[in-house]
Amino acid sequence: MDIEQGCYVVIFTNQLGADREGYDAMAARMIELSAEQEGFLGVKSVRDGLEGITVSYWESEAAIANWKANAEHAAAREKGRERWYMEYQLQVCKVERSYGFG
Amino acid sequence: MDIEQGCYVVIFTNQLGADREGYDAMAARMIELSAEQEGFLGVKSVRDGLEGITVSYWESEAAIANWKANAEHAAAREKGRERWYMEYQLQVCKVERSYGFG
Repeated sequence: MDIEQGCYVVIFTNQLGADREGYDAMAARMIELSAEQEGFLGVKSVRDGLEGITVSYWESEAAIANWKANAEHAAAREKGRERWYMEYQLQVCKVERSYGFG
Repeated sequence: MDIEQGCYVVIFTNQLGADREGYDAMAARMIELSAEQEGFLGVKSVRDGLEGITVSYWESEAAIANWKANAEHAAAREKGRERWYMEYQLQVCKVERSYGFG
């Protein structure tokens, strides 16, 4: 994953509720499906119990809009609000700089 | 935490190595210390075993630079590279839009 200045990132922080049935399969499917989208650069997702953070990286805002418009993704989001998520926050951000170690 | 367009966020994704002694105490201390800094807006951190993601939100790039220059933080980063982290990536990003549910 080569993340550079000018890329975009979606930060999705969330807290699950009590009903987790079907959640893990949906989450795994969304990771898989996002990776098939045009302009996808990479994704990292970590969950500890109810708390989760997923960051996905994209070439452009248009790529994010296309992913948001994906029908299967839209259905998963609706089910997430109805059933799985107690709360979530989402930020769309532009990468100013990026570096790493190791 | 009120995150709006124009705020900045630091995304820190990391993988720990085998030596974890002292890591959890350092990580907790850095969360605490970051929250005392000028321009700090909030932080979320999730770890699942070796994989971690921390996102911290800031009023400005200057606030991020000040936090980076904090001596205790700099010492922790150095120890992190020497001892705890197998690898990490860091992005400084500007928030374009933010919304939530719940």
